[in-house]
Amino acid sequence: MALCTVYTTHALHSTCSVSTQTKKHLAFHQWQVFFCTHNNKITRNSRCSEISFATGDAKTVVIGLAADSGCGKSTFMKRLTSVFGGAAEPPKGGNPYSNTLISDTTTVICMDDYHSLDRTGRKEKGVTALDPRANNFDLMYEHVKAIKDGVAVEKPIYNHVTGLLDPPELIQPPHILVIEGLHPMFDPRVRELLDFSIYLDISNEVKFAWKIQRDMAERGHSLESIKASIEARKPDFDAYIDPQKQYADAVIEVLPTQLIPDEDEGKVLRVRLVMKEGVKYFSPVYLFDEGSTLTWIPCGRKLTCSYPGIKFSYGPDTYFSHEVSVLEMDGKFERLDELIYVENHLSNLSTKFYGEVTQQMLKHSDFPGSNNGTGLFQTIVGLKIRDLYEQILADSKVESPLQASKAQGSTVL
Amino acid sequence: MALCTVYTTHALHSTCSVSTQTKKHLAFHQWQVFFCTHNNKITRNSRCSEISFATGDAKTVVIGLAADSGCGKSTFMKRLTSVFGGAAEPPKGGNPYSNTLISDTTTVICMDDYHSLDRTGRKEKGVTALDPRANNFDLMYEHVKAIKDGVAVEKPIYNHVTGLLDPPELIQPPHILVIEGLHPMFDPRVRELLDFSIYLDISNEVKFAWKIQRDMAERGHSLESIKASIEARKPDFDAYIDPQKQYADAVIEVLPTQLIPDEDEGKVLRVRLVMKEGVKYFSPVYLFDEGSTLTWIPCGRKLTCSYPGIKFSYGPDTYFSHEVSVLEMDGKFERLDELIYVENHLSNLSTKFYGEVTQQMLKHSDFPGSNNGTGLFQTIVGLKIRDLYEQILADSKVESPLQASKAQGSTVL
Repeated sequence: MALCTVYTTHALHSTCSVSTQTKKHLAFHQWQVFFCTHNNKITRNSRCSEISFATGDAKTVVIGLAADSGCGKSTFMKRLTSVFGGAAEPPKGGNPYSNTLISDTTTVICMDDYHSLDRTGRKEKGVTALDPRANNFDLMYEHVKAIKDGVAVEKPIYNHVTGLLDPPELIQPPHILVIEGLHPMFDPRVRELLDFSIYLDISNEVKFAWKIQRDMAERGHSLESIKASIEARKPDFDAYIDPQKQYADAVIEVLPTQLIPDEDEGKVLRVRLVMKEGVKYFSPVYLFDEGSTLTWIPCGRKLTCSYPGIKFSYGPDTYFSHEVSVLEMDGKFERLDELIYVENHLSNLSTKFYGEVTQQMLKHSDFPGSNNGTGLFQTIVGLKIRDLYEQILADSKVESPLQASKAQGSTVL
Repeated sequence: MALCTVYTTHALHSTCSVSTQTKKHLAFHQWQVFFCTHNNKITRNSRCSEISFATGDAKTVVIGLAADSGCGKSTFMKRLTSVFGGAAEPPKGGNPYSNTLISDTTTVICMDDYHSLDRTGRKEKGVTALDPRANNFDLMYEHVKAIKDGVAVEKPIYNHVTGLLDPPELIQPPHILVIEGLHPMFDPRVRELLDFSIYLDISNEVKFAWKIQRDMAERGHSLESIKASIEARKPDFDAYIDPQKQYADAVIEVLPTQLIPDEDEGKVLRVRLVMKEGVKYFSPVYLFDEGSTLTWIPCGRKLTCSYPGIKFSYGPDTYFSHEVSVLEMDGKFERLDELIYVENHLSNLSTKFYGEVTQQMLKHSDFPGSNNGTGLFQTIVGLKIRDLYEQILADSKVESPLQASKAQGSTVL
């Protein structure tokens, strides 16, 4: 029997409408109470807010995903939500320019929505979107904390088309909240709220190759302008975005291949999954022998890979003074049998059945990176997050109902 | 019930003594009949010979081991016989300069005993011991064939001290006959008789380092004279010894380490075990994933190796147009836990119990190469030979008694 504390509207000095809708929240029911506040800092513009009283032991697990723009965060998010079984879609009936993705279990919000300056404002002040001064970390923190505490928030929307801040949208506490964008690990208070954090680290060479492909081939930009835009962005990127990777529990590094000399089109990639050791609920994937240093070219007698083949590396290392395990894949998959063969030799994948990684990769074979380490490692990280979520849930179930109710009560305050 | 054919002394036109001694030969009994011949080519100097009628399915398995002098053949042989459980010793009560080693199961004979020219003879004719003209391959073939057929032989003895050919010694057909020396795979007829063949391939650098250590440090030779002796030996070695490796089922290559730059004292070695694919009764050892290409540094979180550590490599390759698997170990073991950890990760070792390789290595920790790949791979090859022998034995047991008796009869003729 789960307990929860319901606060009256009176206590909050607000006008309120109380909804009695219930919905299945894992095996537990969730009572949702709408109320409005004027002075509550949780909402940006004193709009109506929703408090979700997650009964029992349901808890929002918060994941941070940091990367530069155009580095595959949205693909990653689609892979992550797919692991949980549902498709991720923008909020129904809301602002068509919403940056949010919602699936049965997971809500992905974009940290661009916490820009404090719109495009004009940034231009006037001469700051980029990468600059912390263009972002409202207080609000970001308060929102993430509220959601983690089971409290819905009204989050602003940064409209990437107009460059303006649109009216906010309601974000209800999901099972898993992913905060993705430029700065999810920048603010120490926000960082503290993260149950797991990931940094997508695209090397300059690959970033450049990708930009050329997208902006030159698809958007008709000139090589000069692409170079100039990357150069202009670099100082702020190096100052504010890149340093976040030291806090990440997992880093996916995307580098040029070492299998083909001078390959610089970014078509064959060397991808490294850097996994921090000693992170609660996270047990790094390994190849053959945990803690040893290995290379593995699975192509041979049993598997014939086409040129340039596939090469895996695995081993312990240090990353910003942290002990880590690194799994690396250089090359690309051509066929299903290569993928299942590789999956078969990786351990600690947190799959629920034999071949789940391969199944996930095949399901989204049209996503970018499905034939290389970006897709493979994003899928693996997705599985690890599911595992982490389930362990947190299981742990919270072990707590006594009294403790759970106390914890529940305190989160609402 | 086993059958055998016994020939009378009369039929061989010789005076004979018949022994009725019986001894346990696996699960079968062996009747041994002594007889003497004058014209039988089997003996070199028309001495008495012994025919063993191995009843049932006991069969002599013949192994060839080729290598240059001073390359560790005798250590290898001690490791091999140890795998079968018995100590190898020179024939009791015989010539103290015998080159033969006998254990319960295995007899090792040295191909130097088939020198057709003694030291003086070679000097006179200006040929080295490596030159086929200094060796009697006809006799070698006939003896090996006879032993394989269950017939004892009187083998000459080359006295390494005097450089003379001493009176012969009696060699009875053992379970396993190892013919070791410079030319066991030189003659195609002898090669054809081998059930398994091994070549110890010591690189020039290591050979040089070893010779310096032995001949300079221990025997007081000058560096100049060592160099001169190696140089003088090289043309014949390259012409007659080295080419045999193309016929070997397993090659143990001993090379300088790649872990320490410019290490040339031969103290740290890189040893490669080249195993031919498709050899009946021989299934190559592999590391983690059969047929893939791998490197493995077992030193890491679970095992802390001292400098320069240990590095294994494994993978498919070709060797003289044959498909092979190559297992390589660079570096040296410091402690037992390193050895057992390595053994634990190798597959197809043909051990009979967990840790048998380690146990064998520890048992002979005073043998040269016990802390590196030479000892490890010699031990492994020993286990593979035991396995090969047991498979051959099992196969021959499957033959019908009639077939077995026919085969037996024909070998004596």
